[in-house]
Amino acid sequence: MKILLTAFDPFGGASVNPAWEAVSRVREDLPGIALRKLLVPTVFAESGALVNRTANEWGAEAVICVGQAGGRYEVTPERVAINIDDASVPDNAGDQPLDRPITPGGAPAYFATLPNKAIVAALRKAGIPSSLSDSAGTYVCNHLLYQVLEENALRHPERLGGFLHLPFLPAQVVNRSRTPSMALGDMVRALEIALAVTSAV
Amino acid sequence: MKILLTAFDPFGGASVNPAWEAVSRVREDLPGIALRKLLVPTVFAESGALVNRTANEWGAEAVICVGQAGGRYEVTPERVAINIDDASVPDNAGDQPLDRPITPGGAPAYFATLPNKAIVAALRKAGIPSSLSDSAGTYVCNHLLYQVLEENALRHPERLGGFLHLPFLPAQVVNRSRTPSMALGDMVRALEIALAVTSAV
Amino acid sequence: MKILLTAFDPFGGASVNPAWEAVSRVREDLPGIALRKLLVPTVFAESGALVNRTANEWGAEAVICVGQAGGRYEVTPERVAINIDDASVPDNAGDQPLDRPITPGGAPAYFATLPNKAIVAALRKAGIPSSLSDSAGTYVCNHLLYQVLEENALRHPERLGGFLHLPFLPAQVVNRSRTPSMALGDMVRALEIALAVTSAV
Amino acid sequence: MKILLTAFDPFGGASVNPAWEAVSRVREDLPGIALRKLLVPTVFAESGALVNRTANEWGAEAVICVGQAGGRYEVTPERVAINIDDASVPDNAGDQPLDRPITPGGAPAYFATLPNKAIVAALRKAGIPSSLSDSAGTYVCNHLLYQVLEENALRHPERLGGFLHLPFLPAQVVNRSRTPSMALGDMVRALEIALAVTSAV
Repeated sequence: MKILLTAFDPFGGASVNPAWEAVSRVREDLPGIALRKLLVPTVFAESGALVNRTANEWGAEAVICVGQAGGRYEVTPERVAINIDDASVPDNAGDQPLDRPITPGGAPAYFATLPNKAIVAALRKAGIPSSLSDSAGTYVCNHLLYQVLEENALRHPERLGGFLHLPFLPAQVVNRSRTPSMALGDMVRALEIALAVTSAV
Repeated sequence: MKILLTAFDPFGGASVNPAWEAVSRVREDLPGIALRKLLVPTVFAESGALVNRTANEWGAEAVICVGQAGGRYEVTPERVAINIDDASVPDNAGDQPLDRPITPGGAPAYFATLPNKAIVAALRKAGIPSSLSDSAGTYVCNHLLYQVLEENALRHPERLGGFLHLPFLPAQVVNRSRTPSMALGDMVRALEIALAVTSAV
Repeated sequence: MKILLTAFDPFGGASVNPAWEAVSRVREDLPGIALRKLLVPTVFAESGALVNRTANEWGAEAVICVGQAGGRYEVTPERVAINIDDASVPDNAGDQPLDRPITPGGAPAYFATLPNKAIVAALRKAGIPSSLSDSAGTYVCNHLLYQVLEENALRHPERLGGFLHLPFLPAQVVNRSRTPSMALGDMVRALEIALAVTSAV
Repeated sequence: MKILLTAFDPFGGASVNPAWEAVSRVREDLPGIALRKLLVPTVFAESGALVNRTANEWGAEAVICVGQAGGRYEVTPERVAINIDDASVPDNAGDQPLDRPITPGGAPAYFATLPNKAIVAALRKAGIPSSLSDSAGTYVCNHLLYQVLEENALRHPERLGGFLHLPFLPAQVVNRSRTPSMALGDMVRALEIALAVTSAV
């Protein structure tokens, strides 16, 4: 299976994004998978177009986007993307949309088509905390997932699409009290498991 | 420096204790440190005597006890042990003391003599979440720390003593919602850093 | 404005539901509001039909549903309902749907039409913790909100609809560690403020 | 029973302290209790002397100190005070002691003599979240409790002493995410119950 694995760059003043730290370390030789990695700017106006163009040109069979959800305890596949941008901080281009539809007149939501529950089960079995998330928020993560799923639904119905949110890395929380984190090695392992589960669909 | 590093066995129905998982993996060849490891039963009546006897026979210059504090987010050196046992679950021998002094007529508390703040600073610098804890609870962890510090204060005033609490391991929380954890590798690294900081006192 | 205010009965083995405790205490004489209260069974197959039938027969201009979201810290208006039932516990009729569409072929989601952000702002100004929620879950709460918003969208486009989630009551958490709660009086006050803000649209 | 009930003033930049908000509203006519209330400055160098002088001059039979523990979920009686000041923010006089003994050469700790477990049980029975705390921190709260218990132990062994920590008020957390709070009415009720339980000793 040809899988496009994307990750956002750092945003909101952070110097690192665990998404790219993990994605960049994922093994390239996973059996049965042709893997392509893509670093995506945390920019509303660019992220979806870049990912969909790359997926289309390459002929990806699945697109798995990865992002940071600071404050979460687990690796959380996202169930759904909703048709709204509502940002509490500006993106990396300075855009801060408030209650703005991603696609005016578009579907109100798209459900991810990755095998989310099988991914959660496989991660837990591997000792990695994971649960299904019912909200990807209303920032660039949700925006990208919406645009990927919209592209798939409208033009590539056979292509799988989904999103995995990662917690903070330990080094990101040393000055934050009571904030959960996950080791980079476990994140990398989680992504490799998610890839394997997806490719076995 | 001759350092005795102790860890509790599993308790409360758990099949694993991150303390011993981490301690058993600590490098034995840390520069300037003669290291001895000791697995300690989670039993009020046995833990302190075993640790102190081992420390005395070997001539330990520092005793660092390690235990699990499920629910914590960080590696937490303990500031103090108080003269009370008050258990919410039985220990591994079935003993569940309630509001019972550890040493009747003993000092109400002993302060740990490890370089706790230097350990916290070194751990954070290494990207490992850590903060000082003001309470080791009133279970076997506090009990052991009290007895170690009492032994040191009364008979070995030059011997350092302290306690490091570790969070759950990731595999321990896969079926618990919103519970923080820490990777085993980071725990091992944290202990090795704490040993190095202690030996540099 | 004619506002139908609904609340679920207790579920999941609980003996009380803060939703009805609060709704039943809301003042009936709020200026400019004709208020009707409705207790709704926590049953997938019944809740939506009952609420919509009541709203239609009475000619409600707004439907505000209230439910419990145990573990939340704040009064949380819901932004959206998604077209999926996925229950972790059975409802009060023993039904536990898994990944089942609420309306097969229906819209993937509906956005609430209450003035959610104005409600949050008014509650905070009144000293009541509140924030917007991006997920009503996938249990009966989301189910009811979906069916209310679907009914409004398809047949009563002028009728407002939305959902407010309430935390646990203090008495519900006395045996749960580290679980937030909110006093009943503050919940009642929150609902009265939400009603006033809604009626001023 | 003659009970002195004290509360700190706001500190750390806050405009309100739930301790005094609650203490000032406690009923004065509780049966069997002569109640005296005292507002105490959040100042290391003044708090203990003021409270002890007041207790001695009046002939208090019990001293119950009340303070804020922002971030806690429950009313938490304190088990113990330890002989150390270690402040993360300056007190209201600008003093920020670091690892400084409260009483050089003094007892390392004093245990509170209030009926803490009976208070917790009575609060829970009344539907108010409560649990015993094993640490009053190392700020002015612990400092005051230490000095009160030291005075009692050394010169008034029959006088009871203890400390109750209160969560934030709801209005204090409207701009903090995921922070628990408690309604003022429940705090007042909690203090009245604690007074009644104490007077029944």
